[in-house]
Amino acid sequence: MEQEKLHDLLQSLTLQEKIGQLIQLSGEFFDATDISLGPQRKLGITQEAVDLAGSVLNVAGAKEVKRIQDIHLRQGGHPIPLLFMADVIYGYKTVYPIPLGIGATWDPALVERAYTNTADEARASGLQISFAPMVDLVRDPRWGRVLESTGEDPYLNSRFATAMVKGFQKNLAAGSGLVSCVKHFAAYGAAEAGREYNPADLSTPTLFQDYLPSYKAAIDAGVKMVMTSLTTLNGVPATADKWLLQDILRKRWGVDGVIISDYASVYELIKHGFAQDSTDAAAKALTAGVDIDMKSPCYANGLQPLVENGHLSEAKIDDAVWRVLTLKNELGLFEHPYGGATEEREHAQTLTPEKRSLARDLSRKALVLLKNNENLLPLNPHSNQRVALIGPYADEQELLGLWAVHGERKDTVTIKAGFSEYLPAQQLQTAKGTDIIRDRAMLEKMGVSAEQIGHIISGSNTEQSNHDQALAIAKNADIIVFAAGEHTLQSGEAGSRTRLRLPDNQRQLLAELRKLNKPIVLIVISGRPLVLTDVQDQADAILQAWFPGTEGGHAIADVIFGRYNPTGRLSMTFPYDEGQLPLYYNHLSTGRPENHSQHSGRFVSRYIDNPNKPLYPFGYGLSYGSVQYGELKLDSDTLAAAGRDELTAAISVTNTGAVPREETVQFYIHDQVASIVQPVKRLIGFQKVPIQPGETKTAALTITPDMLSFANRDGEFITEPGMFDLFAGPNSQDVHQTSFSLTE
Amino acid sequence: MEQEKLHDLLQSLTLQEKIGQLIQLSGEFFDATDISLGPQRKLGITQEAVDLAGSVLNVAGAKEVKRIQDIHLRQGGHPIPLLFMADVIYGYKTVYPIPLGIGATWDPALVERAYTNTADEARASGLQISFAPMVDLVRDPRWGRVLESTGEDPYLNSRFATAMVKGFQKNLAAGSGLVSCVKHFAAYGAAEAGREYNPADLSTPTLFQDYLPSYKAAIDAGVKMVMTSLTTLNGVPATADKWLLQDILRKRWGVDGVIISDYASVYELIKHGFAQDSTDAAAKALTAGVDIDMKSPCYANGLQPLVENGHLSEAKIDDAVWRVLTLKNELGLFEHPYGGATEEREHAQTLTPEKRSLARDLSRKALVLLKNNENLLPLNPHSNQRVALIGPYADEQELLGLWAVHGERKDTVTIKAGFSEYLPAQQLQTAKGTDIIRDRAMLEKMGVSAEQIGHIISGSNTEQSNHDQALAIAKNADIIVFAAGEHTLQSGEAGSRTRLRLPDNQRQLLAELRKLNKPIVLIVISGRPLVLTDVQDQADAILQAWFPGTEGGHAIADVIFGRYNPTGRLSMTFPYDEGQLPLYYNHLSTGRPENHSQHSGRFVSRYIDNPNKPLYPFGYGLSYGSVQYGELKLDSDTLAAAGRDELTAAISVTNTGAVPREETVQFYIHDQVASIVQPVKRLIGFQKVPIQPGETKTAALTITPDMLSFANRDGEFITEPGMFDLFAGPNSQDVHQTSFSLTE
Repeated sequence: MEQEKLHDLLQSLTLQEKIGQLIQLSGEFFDATDISLGPQRKLGITQEAVDLAGSVLNVAGAKEVKRIQDIHLRQGGHPIPLLFMADVIYGYKTVYPIPLGIGATWDPALVERAYTNTADEARASGLQISFAPMVDLVRDPRWGRVLESTGEDPYLNSRFATAMVKGFQKNLAAGSGLVSCVKHFAAYGAAEAGREYNPADLSTPTLFQDYLPSYKAAIDAGVKMVMTSLTTLNGVPATADKWLLQDILRKRWGVDGVIISDYASVYELIKHGFAQDSTDAAAKALTAGVDIDMKSPCYANGLQPLVENGHLSEAKIDDAVWRVLTLKNELGLFEHPYGGATEEREHAQTLTPEKRSLARDLSRKALVLLKNNENLLPLNPHSNQRVALIGPYADEQELLGLWAVHGERKDTVTIKAGFSEYLPAQQLQTAKGTDIIRDRAMLEKMGVSAEQIGHIISGSNTEQSNHDQALAIAKNADIIVFAAGEHTLQSGEAGSRTRLRLPDNQRQLLAELRKLNKPIVLIVISGRPLVLTDVQDQADAILQAWFPGTEGGHAIADVIFGRYNPTGRLSMTFPYDEGQLPLYYNHLSTGRPENHSQHSGRFVSRYIDNPNKPLYPFGYGLSYGSVQYGELKLDSDTLAAAGRDELTAAISVTNTGAVPREETVQFYIHDQVASIVQPVKRLIGFQKVPIQPGETKTAALTITPDMLSFANRDGEFITEPGMFDLFAGPNSQDVHQTSFSLTE
Repeated sequence: MEQEKLHDLLQSLTLQEKIGQLIQLSGEFFDATDISLGPQRKLGITQEAVDLAGSVLNVAGAKEVKRIQDIHLRQGGHPIPLLFMADVIYGYKTVYPIPLGIGATWDPALVERAYTNTADEARASGLQISFAPMVDLVRDPRWGRVLESTGEDPYLNSRFATAMVKGFQKNLAAGSGLVSCVKHFAAYGAAEAGREYNPADLSTPTLFQDYLPSYKAAIDAGVKMVMTSLTTLNGVPATADKWLLQDILRKRWGVDGVIISDYASVYELIKHGFAQDSTDAAAKALTAGVDIDMKSPCYANGLQPLVENGHLSEAKIDDAVWRVLTLKNELGLFEHPYGGATEEREHAQTLTPEKRSLARDLSRKALVLLKNNENLLPLNPHSNQRVALIGPYADEQELLGLWAVHGERKDTVTIKAGFSEYLPAQQLQTAKGTDIIRDRAMLEKMGVSAEQIGHIISGSNTEQSNHDQALAIAKNADIIVFAAGEHTLQSGEAGSRTRLRLPDNQRQLLAELRKLNKPIVLIVISGRPLVLTDVQDQADAILQAWFPGTEGGHAIADVIFGRYNPTGRLSMTFPYDEGQLPLYYNHLSTGRPENHSQHSGRFVSRYIDNPNKPLYPFGYGLSYGSVQYGELKLDSDTLAAAGRDELTAAISVTNTGAVPREETVQFYIHDQVASIVQPVKRLIGFQKVPIQPGETKTAALTITPDMLSFANRDGEFITEPGMFDLFAGPNSQDVHQTSFSLTE
């Protein structure tokens, strides 16, 4: 539609019709027949509000979308098509590893392609907007929703934010692709003590330097929509934070896209103690800048009286509606209300071999080899070794993680299926051994129904026979592969945990298996960094597999049997103990650092009962074979802040092993002296270097002054002349070091 | 000395002499004979700097002070007497419970008298200034230095800050008393993850509303000195934070007293990465506002060149020196360089029966009865019950905690000694049972010498015989009292722990004792809230005793045998699990509170594996007998913000038991709607009410609008009209509720 016509359309709308465009409801509203019952009643809105609503949440599938769009357009009045939005976070039908696994790939280019594939699948299935990427930086793995984050590093998260947004929106102009909605603005991941929905409380430098860059990256990548956080930031709910939404987002960053609340977060302004009632909540959210109210009665019931009694200008409503209409127009919905979705396209474009193939590649790149004593891995599929694949995840299709909303278990490749492609049946025996979890109290606390619990927790006879079978096949095997992990319900949104160990029953079984004195490979399925301290000595090799997605079983087998030499590197610290949290590599220097204080003895910064260090640091991960790093060199020892100066750092890496290998060379800096104390290290770049055996290659990074900037107390990025340490290496701990100076 | 003469004195000083006044060194410097060896060399300063130094750290005792003052005054040049300062945190020779125990008394009036006693003791012993109170608010018991804090509440901490400052400084004008130095400005207690010296990162509302009020209270009480924190606040080391020291302290709060660094914290600006070198550190600290450099070479070596090369004006030095000279003059040191200290006064004024008596009272008021099943306590000293007093703290004089620098073990009353005053020898048997701690690795990590470790950890034979003896007397007893606790080295400065359980060996012994099926009273000695979750079912009664001080044994016995009906109430939350930390009662409302969200099932703010709630909440503590609270009433349901309006809340309490009892009635508010989300509850007042059996009394609180104010994003306190919930009750959880409105 032409701009002018769109403008005429806006002008022609009644106030109520305008407000409708700012309301988002979930699918069940559009089917209701009796206005005094059902979902409207529960939410407290009228049938008219439903009829006028502008967008739909969590309805997908070409057929269903068409059905609801048709109902809507038949209502008469102004036939403005609905927008269909949903959580498409890490794949649609073809599910990738959880974003924390995606973070471990350090491969934004691949991730961009993967998200384009996802956009194709989802758009063909009737969706137009995805509530992704979630780019919230997380430093505390107690928070269950870390599953949806790419990790703890601002630079790496920003790279992935860019890749995901570009991937989603790539084919938009061609009438395909998805509009991307970055979330959750801002700093949702800083929920205190890792407890879901807890407040975030941050200084300005920390907010700007660590938490905001990934949102900014999404915006710079052209993201068309922003979702607010459910939480408070520094005492103000993000959903009504004028400073965040107006001063930062619209004014400082120039965002003109749509801002949407999170699920019911406008209504929850009341629960927060920030708004008096539903009308007050509507006024505060709209005034702060929220265009669309997701799944709450506030805009539906509150905006009209606010305008009518003069507390809110209709022009403010018009601005919001204009942004919504513009987005619908950009998507071509006025001409093509189904957005190009058909059941045929849907069928043809989802779960294709090509999409599965890319998912398999992404999934194996997400796997992080944490331990590999005496090169136990890879297993040789051509030897005659008998493998006992044991554990609750050995033959389990629940490998998608909590928030693969549209993915289906039935499409998922299990670990057993993956192994079966490498080993003949007589060499592979499988046993469940034990349930994933047997903690009934926890499941009840989460509101899981008795029936569901019955599916999760086996009766004691079944459990005993699982156990006995596992021991039996283990005794008969040369190698034990133990596929362990969290239950899906233990991570993801509202899956906050105080204890991050593998479930007790699994640890007990592992300990029993250990007594057999056979080599053990531990595969860990989890939605977060677990504390593996007490099991790391129970296994000779450990593969961190996250929830690996649809192709998970293939990917794991590819790595276990050496078809793929693992390249995954942690994008988040694995703690040694829960009592260290939050723990992250890019922490500030203290005045009494543990290992280089002028104080000896007690008075240094540390815990007395556990190390300061994590079990596995940020950036860590093993590959098969070995490499040797050379000296870290610079082509100049000064860099001028003025002009367009740059310098190049280079480090050589030699493959000293017998197999080809890809090394992820990581570059970190430390600003030695700054007016805001700077992290001991922070990532400024990395390079993936494939190296053949015997070959030496050089990884290089060009450093420019802007890469050395930091946020001051006003949230402005500045550079200060002085000395910088530069580090390079395979992870954030094992690094080579040099230094250079930034001059005026 | 008259102002004019003091001014002349300042004018007559050379630059070097002036700088000397800004240097503080510890005692060993003043004895050194060879300038090329010893402490000067280690610190990197000259003999001249020592000769000109203005103040002394941690030298006490009338004789020693006189000796050093005499040496100093004999140097010739300008005979400006030294100031003697030391850590006198919770008593001098007569040691009180640790401040966290003091916090549990809820008795500022008694604390004020106690601190006056301490000032008398210390001044008679040659000290003039105490580096106390430490008023840092703490929400994370992993931090060992929580021992020196009165807890987690801004209001309660402020009350104690006021009491301590007034107590110290009460007799100053009369030539006695101590100058009080409040510390550590600011927010040292917010060290991240409870790890010592870690950064604090806080929003402006949190800083002003929660962390700053206790410092402000000390300043309003007339404190004459302020010490900076060792840590960074929002990226800037407090010791060089111009905003904190100039904008807030000097300008907004009008402080004109002396500002001193913490131990070596000027030097540590380099370690922080905030200053280039020692000279830069000196420039940054002085410019920010630090007058005295404690135990670092920076001012001694750096200030003179800075002035001489024009980087620093001599006027700035003069300002700082003037403040130091003024303080010396106020203390009358120019006339009485020993500050009135003599060995006779020292002897006459320390550890007097009166001072011990007050300490005993303070100590028993600090004891918190956490559990008392079936009224096991108090024990009847006149029954024929045989008591087995078991545990490493049963007959241990190490009851002073880590930072009772001047207190002596030999003066301490053990628990056994206390019990012996109630029970005849034939009814009391005592056994150590096990060492306090047997964790050699932890002690080594802390830098404890092998010899000291030998004193702490018994050989296995001794340990076995301790164990056997304990079991033997337990079997023979009617009641077991188990005196357990942390080792002194496990808390206090640099005593951060990730795990907060009682030592394993003690828990094992307790579990064994439990199997005897006899009533068990658990006494807990600790410098922090421990996690008692796993031992709370192992005991029928639990008495939290902190490090109870010189009179600890008496105080504990007074409570155990019912001479004193316990009144202690926790000033800090006792967590259920380390994985909940930080945890505190006055947290903000979330949008999805666990028990009153519109969401049912999973999606509320909580942990899935442990409760949100603590084991024991803020304000909690039991007394003997029982009470019944009446209805909470207000004399008006509105309060006008303008004018001098007030309203009065009242609640009746009836003693329904058989013994006299003192109830600490606590009043909390919640601002229902505010432009900065407010805590679910916050303490605004309390009243101690002694009640005889059968008697009913009324606790009342007058509420004025300023008590309802909160800090906005600029750190200004504002009030907003609207509804307030008011709560009253025996602790922060079990409360009666009403509400009122604040009008314009």
